[in-house]
Amino acid sequence: MSSKSLTPMSKDSAQWYIEVVKRADLADYSPVKGCMIIKPYGYAIWEMIQKDLDKRIKDAGVQNAYFPLFIPKSFLSREAEHVKGFAKECAIVTHYRLRETVDGKGVEVDPESKLEEELIVRPTSETIMYDTFSKWIESWRDLPLKINQWANIVRWEMRTRPFLRTLEFLWQEGHTAHATREEAEAEVNRALKMYRNFAKDTLAIPLIMGKKTKGESFPGADYTTTIEALLRDGKALQCGTSHLLGQNFAKSFNIKFVDKDNKEQYVWQTSWGMTTRMIGALILMHGDDIGLVLPPNVAPIQIVIVPIFRSDEEKILVQQFVEKVSLLLGNDFRIEIDWRDESPGWKFSEWEMKGVPLRFEIGPRDVSNNSVFAADRRSGKKMAIVVDDNLADSVKSLLTQIQNEIYDSANEYVNSHLKQIESYDEFISVAKDHEGLISTYFCGDKEEEDLIKYETKFGTRCMPFEHVGKFGKCLKCGKEDSPLTYFGKAY
Amino acid sequence: MSSKSLTPMSKDSAQWYIEVVKRADLADYSPVKGCMIIKPYGYAIWEMIQKDLDKRIKDAGVQNAYFPLFIPKSFLSREAEHVKGFAKECAIVTHYRLRETVDGKGVEVDPESKLEEELIVRPTSETIMYDTFSKWIESWRDLPLKINQWANIVRWEMRTRPFLRTLEFLWQEGHTAHATREEAEAEVNRALKMYRNFAKDTLAIPLIMGKKTKGESFPGADYTTTIEALLRDGKALQCGTSHLLGQNFAKSFNIKFVDKDNKEQYVWQTSWGMTTRMIGALILMHGDDIGLVLPPNVAPIQIVIVPIFRSDEEKILVQQFVEKVSLLLGNDFRIEIDWRDESPGWKFSEWEMKGVPLRFEIGPRDVSNNSVFAADRRSGKKMAIVVDDNLADSVKSLLTQIQNEIYDSANEYVNSHLKQIESYDEFISVAKDHEGLISTYFCGDKEEEDLIKYETKFGTRCMPFEHVGKFGKCLKCGKEDSPLTYFGKAY
Repeated sequence: MSSKSLTPMSKDSAQWYIEVVKRADLADYSPVKGCMIIKPYGYAIWEMIQKDLDKRIKDAGVQNAYFPLFIPKSFLSREAEHVKGFAKECAIVTHYRLRETVDGKGVEVDPESKLEEELIVRPTSETIMYDTFSKWIESWRDLPLKINQWANIVRWEMRTRPFLRTLEFLWQEGHTAHATREEAEAEVNRALKMYRNFAKDTLAIPLIMGKKTKGESFPGADYTTTIEALLRDGKALQCGTSHLLGQNFAKSFNIKFVDKDNKEQYVWQTSWGMTTRMIGALILMHGDDIGLVLPPNVAPIQIVIVPIFRSDEEKILVQQFVEKVSLLLGNDFRIEIDWRDESPGWKFSEWEMKGVPLRFEIGPRDVSNNSVFAADRRSGKKMAIVVDDNLADSVKSLLTQIQNEIYDSANEYVNSHLKQIESYDEFISVAKDHEGLISTYFCGDKEEEDLIKYETKFGTRCMPFEHVGKFGKCLKCGKEDSPLTYFGKAY
Repeated sequence: MSSKSLTPMSKDSAQWYIEVVKRADLADYSPVKGCMIIKPYGYAIWEMIQKDLDKRIKDAGVQNAYFPLFIPKSFLSREAEHVKGFAKECAIVTHYRLRETVDGKGVEVDPESKLEEELIVRPTSETIMYDTFSKWIESWRDLPLKINQWANIVRWEMRTRPFLRTLEFLWQEGHTAHATREEAEAEVNRALKMYRNFAKDTLAIPLIMGKKTKGESFPGADYTTTIEALLRDGKALQCGTSHLLGQNFAKSFNIKFVDKDNKEQYVWQTSWGMTTRMIGALILMHGDDIGLVLPPNVAPIQIVIVPIFRSDEEKILVQQFVEKVSLLLGNDFRIEIDWRDESPGWKFSEWEMKGVPLRFEIGPRDVSNNSVFAADRRSGKKMAIVVDDNLADSVKSLLTQIQNEIYDSANEYVNSHLKQIESYDEFISVAKDHEGLISTYFCGDKEEEDLIKYETKFGTRCMPFEHVGKFGKCLKCGKEDSPLTYFGKAY
């Protein structure tokens, strides 16, 4: 661990972010521009996310499956809105064979291997899945069809940042088909709430649920719902979306079913996804000037035990006590015991940088006191915990408390960085240095939306469900009955 | 479930295979030639495989990570043997943007978006990983480095078959770097044994461990070890490989470390992988003319309960008893209770086709006898099991017994289909109609190997570890001290 301190978040949050990603061993740059390498510690966080979210997905009766990485080019243009708004910046496979160069030193594309139809590396899987759904669905008995896929996705982004926006990323995408619009809408809401609860319970990230404006909706959807985070650098992040696709794709891909009255109907569809971007959200929601802060429920290591000793005798003493502590803690926690040949201070810095929620220091004095000296990564609070039969229970309570405090702290940040404004003049002046969200009434017009973003750098985030039914005059054009809308700066 | 019976395996094993894949709901054809869709039931088997194998990988101190899907073209030619033998039939990304066609009805590749250097969709990740390993490894303290990746892989195969050989497949690839050749060799063996044990314990597939001939080794490896299955259609299948890469890639990618004597040295490397092909192995190792047979340890559903009743009264009676049975079985089994509105016979056929190891039929007579009527999918044996406090234990024993019997049956098949031959004339005559492996002495010469394959359709599978040290005259050229080698037909 380099002893050089981090660039403070308040000084340069973008630089702080990159340093944390690198120094907490989360990700590395790759030789392919815009693609990242997810390092073992970062990937362990993703595995925690996957395991938790996958259970929630399965509990809702959704089944995992796997569809091809490649999509025939013609599929993308079958849903007119989809191709216009979405499927442009993609990786395109045009050939399938390399051959040796004449000098024998390298390889080149064999022009003879040109594909008749180019293949697109999936930027999302609606088209490739729905072509097959049309074969799987025949009657109402086949509905609802609820499929989820864990996969890699490629979108050719020019400006990238590890986790937040990369050319390739990992995600899950749920795709469901239903007999009625009502059932499909219920599924859109279920998925959104599942994401919100997951983020709250596991990631300790408070999310605002709402509806996207038409301009910010998924191309091909009737409407898009979203969960938005406000992170510590004052920027908003779309953490997941859940779309009502209506019958748009059903009509393009001819997904029909015979209903109970023996009539043919198009299905109603939804899709919803969450990505490795959530690791970026974790970093920016909870991190501080010391490094990463991980909530216990998503931390690959919840407790790090650092033994402290100066002689072989002390080492033996400490070792025995550490074993006792391990035994009493049992298998309910994710624990790392750090016996490496480095100084305690060096180890403290490393585990603080990596955001391990709880550190136990165990030295000869702790042994004689029959306690461990515990340090809470987020608050910096330190306390002695008695080592007895209640140890596991004490530690469990403590971790729950830490999880809750991390959430409360995040929630307080969000609540205290939401500013209500009344006029566009006020919007412009507030937008200049406001770190957080702005709440106002907005008509939803695409041109006005683009103009506001151009003039203030603040774009619409969502019309929050919390305030559904609140209407007022549009801040830009004065139109009556405009819904309450949140604006924020994005990455 | 269609009542049409399967094509018998003995009549046409290729047709039987395709029918089982389709009718057991394992996979479907996709609109992209050579790519398959893994359906929920097939994917659930893959998840069972992943969970089990992932634990074994982590228990060996290997960490999961994720590297980019794309490899710069130039990387492939850095290791000379690698590019010659391997990296030719690949998906090549040449452009990154689509644009609307002039008529506005479709999309076409934007010629302005041509990449300076083409990107290859990974056919395996040695090159992209090792470029980064050279940055991660500095001193002996960084060794061993043990990384595993779960990922999708693309190799442009022309003749494909679901699971066995597809253009895109899923796998795990382990990549390790060590300070000495001895350590690397130990890792090659560890990984191979891990695969063998996994296949035995979980998939009930007996595997033969051995070394590949030079001609069949991984391009860029010092040598390749393999685990080979002999499946019920008499064909051999390579189920996984573990390579000693030596210092070949280390030299091409400049992966050096400073050893304890402060000297710079190249690392010694290994790589090893297992794929979705194992689902194909499961089908062809255990399946029969009724359909799939799954060993309990890998079956997504271990027990299916089919309630049998003729009146509402009987239904209530049966329902209560089914609940009692569920309660007594607890959470230790993967159970499906089939209350669908179909006949018992229809349900029996479906679950037999899907290879569920154990079926419980519960009707009024079973209720009054306080027992369930159990049917073992593989053997067809039927028995009554008393429903009392010992139920979970009885069922656990029964599943263990079924797992063992499936393995023993497979093992017996393999042992009884291994034929020792003495001369090439005998080889040619045996090869004509032998379903199984042929054991003989072979010098390992590439040209002779190709000729034998051309003349007999039997290729080398491996030099089995079991018979290391057994030498004789090469069946083809008569060369002395040729190692004992297994030959078989492949897919």
